[in-house]
Amino acid sequence: MFLPREIVKEKLKSFLKEDLGHGDVTSDLLVMDGTVVEAEIVAKESGVLAGLEEIKPLLEEFGLKTEKLKEDGDRLKKGEAILRVIGDAKTILALERTVLNFLCRMSGIATLTAKLVEMVRKAGFKTIIACTRKTAPGLEYFDKKAVRIGGGDTHRLHLDDMILVKDNHIKVVGSVSEAIKRAKEKASFSKKIEVEVSNLAEALEAARVGADIIMLDNFTPAQIKETLLQLEKEGLRSKVLVEASGGINEDNVVEFASTGVDILSIGVLTHSAKALDLSLGVRKVLKRA
Amino acid sequence: MFLPREIVKEKLKSFLKEDLGHGDVTSDLLVMDGTVVEAEIVAKESGVLAGLEEIKPLLEEFGLKTEKLKEDGDRLKKGEAILRVIGDAKTILALERTVLNFLCRMSGIATLTAKLVEMVRKAGFKTIIACTRKTAPGLEYFDKKAVRIGGGDTHRLHLDDMILVKDNHIKVVGSVSEAIKRAKEKASFSKKIEVEVSNLAEALEAARVGADIIMLDNFTPAQIKETLLQLEKEGLRSKVLVEASGGINEDNVVEFASTGVDILSIGVLTHSAKALDLSLGVRKVLKRA
Amino acid sequence: MFLPREIVKEKLKSFLKEDLGHGDVTSDLLVMDGTVVEAEIVAKESGVLAGLEEIKPLLEEFGLKTEKLKEDGDRLKKGEAILRVIGDAKTILALERTVLNFLCRMSGIATLTAKLVEMVRKAGFKTIIACTRKTAPGLEYFDKKAVRIGGGDTHRLHLDDMILVKDNHIKVVGSVSEAIKRAKEKASFSKKIEVEVSNLAEALEAARVGADIIMLDNFTPAQIKETLLQLEKEGLRSKVLVEASGGINEDNVVEFASTGVDILSIGVLTHSAKALDLSLGVRKVLKRA
Amino acid sequence: MFLPREIVKEKLKSFLKEDLGHGDVTSDLLVMDGTVVEAEIVAKESGVLAGLEEIKPLLEEFGLKTEKLKEDGDRLKKGEAILRVIGDAKTILALERTVLNFLCRMSGIATLTAKLVEMVRKAGFKTIIACTRKTAPGLEYFDKKAVRIGGGDTHRLHLDDMILVKDNHIKVVGSVSEAIKRAKEKASFSKKIEVEVSNLAEALEAARVGADIIMLDNFTPAQIKETLLQLEKEGLRSKVLVEASGGINEDNVVEFASTGVDILSIGVLTHSAKALDLSLGVRKVLKRA
Amino acid sequence: MFLPREIVKEKLKSFLKEDLGHGDVTSDLLVMDGTVVEAEIVAKESGVLAGLEEIKPLLEEFGLKTEKLKEDGDRLKKGEAILRVIGDAKTILALERTVLNFLCRMSGIATLTAKLVEMVRKAGFKTIIACTRKTAPGLEYFDKKAVRIGGGDTHRLHLDDMILVKDNHIKVVGSVSEAIKRAKEKASFSKKIEVEVSNLAEALEAARVGADIIMLDNFTPAQIKETLLQLEKEGLRSKVLVEASGGINEDNVVEFASTGVDILSIGVLTHSAKALDLSLGVRKVLKRA
Amino acid sequence: MFLPREIVKEKLKSFLKEDLGHGDVTSDLLVMDGTVVEAEIVAKESGVLAGLEEIKPLLEEFGLKTEKLKEDGDRLKKGEAILRVIGDAKTILALERTVLNFLCRMSGIATLTAKLVEMVRKAGFKTIIACTRKTAPGLEYFDKKAVRIGGGDTHRLHLDDMILVKDNHIKVVGSVSEAIKRAKEKASFSKKIEVEVSNLAEALEAARVGADIIMLDNFTPAQIKETLLQLEKEGLRSKVLVEASGGINEDNVVEFASTGVDILSIGVLTHSAKALDLSLGVRKVLKRA
Repeated sequence: MFLPREIVKEKLKSFLKEDLGHGDVTSDLLVMDGTVVEAEIVAKESGVLAGLEEIKPLLEEFGLKTEKLKEDGDRLKKGEAILRVIGDAKTILALERTVLNFLCRMSGIATLTAKLVEMVRKAGFKTIIACTRKTAPGLEYFDKKAVRIGGGDTHRLHLDDMILVKDNHIKVVGSVSEAIKRAKEKASFSKKIEVEVSNLAEALEAARVGADIIMLDNFTPAQIKETLLQLEKEGLRSKVLVEASGGINEDNVVEFASTGVDILSIGVLTHSAKALDLSLGVRKVLKRA
Repeated sequence: MFLPREIVKEKLKSFLKEDLGHGDVTSDLLVMDGTVVEAEIVAKESGVLAGLEEIKPLLEEFGLKTEKLKEDGDRLKKGEAILRVIGDAKTILALERTVLNFLCRMSGIATLTAKLVEMVRKAGFKTIIACTRKTAPGLEYFDKKAVRIGGGDTHRLHLDDMILVKDNHIKVVGSVSEAIKRAKEKASFSKKIEVEVSNLAEALEAARVGADIIMLDNFTPAQIKETLLQLEKEGLRSKVLVEASGGINEDNVVEFASTGVDILSIGVLTHSAKALDLSLGVRKVLKRA
Repeated sequence: MFLPREIVKEKLKSFLKEDLGHGDVTSDLLVMDGTVVEAEIVAKESGVLAGLEEIKPLLEEFGLKTEKLKEDGDRLKKGEAILRVIGDAKTILALERTVLNFLCRMSGIATLTAKLVEMVRKAGFKTIIACTRKTAPGLEYFDKKAVRIGGGDTHRLHLDDMILVKDNHIKVVGSVSEAIKRAKEKASFSKKIEVEVSNLAEALEAARVGADIIMLDNFTPAQIKETLLQLEKEGLRSKVLVEASGGINEDNVVEFASTGVDILSIGVLTHSAKALDLSLGVRKVLKRA
Repeated sequence: MFLPREIVKEKLKSFLKEDLGHGDVTSDLLVMDGTVVEAEIVAKESGVLAGLEEIKPLLEEFGLKTEKLKEDGDRLKKGEAILRVIGDAKTILALERTVLNFLCRMSGIATLTAKLVEMVRKAGFKTIIACTRKTAPGLEYFDKKAVRIGGGDTHRLHLDDMILVKDNHIKVVGSVSEAIKRAKEKASFSKKIEVEVSNLAEALEAARVGADIIMLDNFTPAQIKETLLQLEKEGLRSKVLVEASGGINEDNVVEFASTGVDILSIGVLTHSAKALDLSLGVRKVLKRA
Repeated sequence: MFLPREIVKEKLKSFLKEDLGHGDVTSDLLVMDGTVVEAEIVAKESGVLAGLEEIKPLLEEFGLKTEKLKEDGDRLKKGEAILRVIGDAKTILALERTVLNFLCRMSGIATLTAKLVEMVRKAGFKTIIACTRKTAPGLEYFDKKAVRIGGGDTHRLHLDDMILVKDNHIKVVGSVSEAIKRAKEKASFSKKIEVEVSNLAEALEAARVGADIIMLDNFTPAQIKETLLQLEKEGLRSKVLVEASGGINEDNVVEFASTGVDILSIGVLTHSAKALDLSLGVRKVLKRA
Repeated sequence: MFLPREIVKEKLKSFLKEDLGHGDVTSDLLVMDGTVVEAEIVAKESGVLAGLEEIKPLLEEFGLKTEKLKEDGDRLKKGEAILRVIGDAKTILALERTVLNFLCRMSGIATLTAKLVEMVRKAGFKTIIACTRKTAPGLEYFDKKAVRIGGGDTHRLHLDDMILVKDNHIKVVGSVSEAIKRAKEKASFSKKIEVEVSNLAEALEAARVGADIIMLDNFTPAQIKETLLQLEKEGLRSKVLVEASGGINEDNVVEFASTGVDILSIGVLTHSAKALDLSLGVRKVLKRA
């Protein structure tokens, strides 16, 4: 839990409203008021479940009974049931698509995150796998939560979190040192300071003037190794966390991890993860009106 | 344009607010009030642009000047500039990530749609390539608009659009015929009636009782051909539109199109399209405060 | 049901909030906390009930118990009780006016719709009686739902529903044919296409180029008959639905229906229907605090 | 002006959004981006204009130019133009229906109010013609403003305005005197206190204990006269305002006014006023895209 | 009660959301899902309690059980428990700060109001102690309710309440008499008319032309006495309420009351009241997850 | 700037709407449409200005012209003008109170903060003066921004900022060490970890297990000194920031600073700061309508 469910329900209702428009005209014609059904959400492929904690209270808010058959973070096998939903047929049908869209997206993100984390762990590395702020618009909270369920790090939750000096800031300010200097002078004591650098010289400069974290932007594994070595030589390695970012994916994540870098941040986790295939099926009509 | 820009701006502002939290703490420390910069949004890979019509008025609402270098629907080459933005540096930096997240997602969807449409057209087919309601939560409008920019069909805009009888409805109602009968009796004259069917018998049943559109769910290309043939034999082919859905992707879209079906609907367009890689770079500092 | 009650409740709460301002200053002074009463909503004239499905969950949301004595669509006689409400006196008094305003409006619309439908049916016609988008601002959903409860057709639910080419579009595009041509080329396969025409020639033109529905705007009954005849002669009558609109009311609805037109659309149903007179009376004080 | 236009615009935009759904699909197909037209809003029957002050800034917010040809409160003749609107064709067509629905309703209310006020004035009476809180849900502000434009009194703006003791309060409290006593003890000094009474005895009781205003509920003109006479006899007439309410309409308003009562409050003004017939027509296409 | 608790809960949730951002990251790490605790809100100094009626339903909305140990308006002693809260530990910790901020502010206002009212009553005066519209932004409703719980008068609830002619109005209109004349001609019969005056002459002018209430702005006690005397002499004292405003505080409130003025309005009650010190402590862990 | 002004304006409009209700009934009666005035906001006592950056765009949004005579952070002397506002008289009068309430609160907080910072600096200490999350409900952003303008530190912006382990967390978790251990294992690398401790032993425990910041809750200056001494002895002083909190105010802030602690956090800055006295006066009527 990051947010209490009462707060999350409101966000989900706004998604639902977009899809409903003036309501479900099909069920309205076909399904009698008072019809009660039992339905199940089922995995149509294997993956990691995420989003159940959000979906369950939404369904309950609409007067439906739910029974959890899985938990967020569980590994799903193809064909496994995730949630049983019992209640008014029209309501279930009106919510079906929004609920699935939500669950499939979060589970897709968790699945990809878990895969990369596992690859790195199996190869024997403790590297933190982090996402970025490259989420779908309006879904920053849910995308980042899915990353965490998948075993990843949320990185900055939003723009008011941590000081992160990026290339555009440096262009405006003039130099890495000047930027860090200003940040250290004026930032709240409660904030860490991270700096994105584009070459070895900047990385060393950042570490020397006291950045808490250095992000190596688009460095090759070889460049990362070299940077870590130089930091070590200057006695700075233990004073900073080092993050690598740019072009990291399933094909190269282990190679990047093997450099000894502390953190790998990966945009694809939230901007291009494939949705996990889940479906909702009516199992029984419990009451015909 | 579906929605006037004044309406769209409000949606975009809500995305922005989620990311801002209590605001951009980094720029606040580093960038002097009154600093003015020129920045550009640039394509880092080739694709089809979508979302510019939405992003431009958002930027202007925040007091920035913009110059369009491309239009929605344009084919982008790697390295091409899309939009020039001039104005307050802090404001540009605060909006950067949300603007890019939005543009990258819409352009990713348009790019994939355009690719599939083109494959089908090149193979000589007029098949409609349509999306589904499997969008990201809260992004139904933008995801569908991106599909249209890519040359696809939006299908139902939301749940109050068209009557679409699906498998779960049929389970509740009892049979395809009964479902269509009810729909035809009670639906507004303004609505078309589509029915999802799971085998040939149901497809013929649906056509006989007068569905406007029949959706063949998870039919193989061979099954689709057989269905179209039987419809032809019964003299029903010209009275219905036929849509195929389920597992269609880049690898098989031409094969599906070659069946002669009217419409191919493809969930992956909106639930799993890869974001297009775009970035925003500060080009010049026009005024240092 | 078009919309789930959870969604509808939120709309009703926004109406309530407008009236409440900083709250009910009168009950606050006069009624002790903890006072419990039983009240009834009663018909003060005969008519058709609509809006109960919306009002009941609103009252329950505020902790009140309700007992339905009538259903939406029921014919009410003067003096009949509709709903019993039991609970906190201050809450009932704070909600009274908003609840009645809502119920009186919806019931007024349903009553007028039912009256016209009945007149047409008694005269032996199956003509569809439809409303328009001429609703009260912000009440499109509720006004249209009331029409349906009264036995009418909702017509387009809102602007993204069906393609409806109107006089102003034709002025911009140039001709009926050109407008329909563009619509057919570009519209989603899921949409019907309707065209508003102002004379016989345009009606025939519209039918020839393949409009699904033709709206005869401000045609007299004689002109409607003539149009239907010409369509018949050209073999087009069975290929289009024909709607008449403009100046139709209680005095002439049967005459219009007698022309054989398919649909009569009537703005007065939603823009000028008289509110049905209902009141809420406290019956007993169950607990004095 | 009650509310600044910036505030009012937001309310109007919410009405617009309800109608737009995912946007104007018709204009989107038919009208080229960049098409500029000149349109006019015109009266199709005579009446009193209201709502222009609200509509004009809404149109301007959407980038349209407007030229007022009439003012709120003006008497309109059939055929007279009210407002010229110049700008993007798609935007004008998307706003058309919402703008007209708003203007037709407010003008209808103003027209009926003005008619009743004029009847009373012509008969030589100064009686205040007031509306009630029986407005359309969500339109309390606009309905009451239209009444004022028509020359009527807004009565309580909402539930936190003035203390108004009604029959249901009296049932809970026990007696008129007790209710007024409590109100006078506890009400803010800033509030007037009005009491609804159902017979002569209650009216006198209310006046004796110091109500500021007495509302005679469903009194006949004869009963009103008798009440005023008795108040006079007791020397109380000058100390209270007297309002009559219940069943007052065009047919009897002058008779009620002739009783000498101070205020006539009339629910029909806002719950059942006929919409004034106005339309928007495209006059010229100024630029074809 | 002014507003039903369902309405108030929504306002409180918006406060909560501002503080939560993307949620409570600390409890999320430290507290296991399913941990249940018992906590208490306790007074850390003496004062008058206000805000409990609002806080209790908020906590319940989030699934927590509450037990009231005190009531709004109660005098609290240091160390006394106010409310027991039992439920999910994470939820209680996430709400803690917002709940306390709310309760401490309302109780602080009620405490100061009660103190001033008591001082005046002990000195033998019936003077009304009123607040102004000088509240914290967005907290007008709650600040005024706290004043009432403390025994004060809410004065105008907001800008649409009562006619209050102030110095800036008079500068625009030209004179006190002209302002009152316009107000009396055009104001709704339901409104009282108050005028702010800056000297004796204006006070007399206001009373002569029929203001209901006169506000003496920044008059010394001596000037107030003189004004009351002159009003008495002219036979106007019984026809108006007289309010004094400006610089009234704990040090001089009794002296001001002793002038015989009817109302003392005091901005400090709502713009500068000290928060009452309350805290929430976890008492027991009832269930460890 | 933390938040772009477009975002801030919306928050301010919501404050305004609360006060407006159905609008300014007084100006509506007294001031002719089209009246234009020049007004000034003036300091009625000395202090530090805050809130101008927010207020200016709000006024401009409503069509008013503004001229800044001071900047946020400026020291104001009694009688100095802060902002000139020119425009529609009704609009200025409708906004007056909300604008002042906002500006007086922010300036009051900035004034008190600046005073404490100055006291500490004059005594020769560099101690950070920080606020807490004890703000007015809904005003967290503005209260914290005012603290920063006054030279203070914002501390955690909201609940998703930094890990802050408090007494209630420790009660649930069991011990300081266990809490920090859990936090360090699971927290995002981007977050600092702070722990509130209640005695010397806990402080040392926290430092030993690696907290970034230690908050000494309700320690006397002597206890703080002793704690710093012991940390020094253990070689931990340079590895942690030390914050003191509880009962710090104008009377003892210098004594607390003299202990050598790094940060003093002070709730009174935001929960009980006195509003700064500012007023808005109409200077000239530029145009009478």
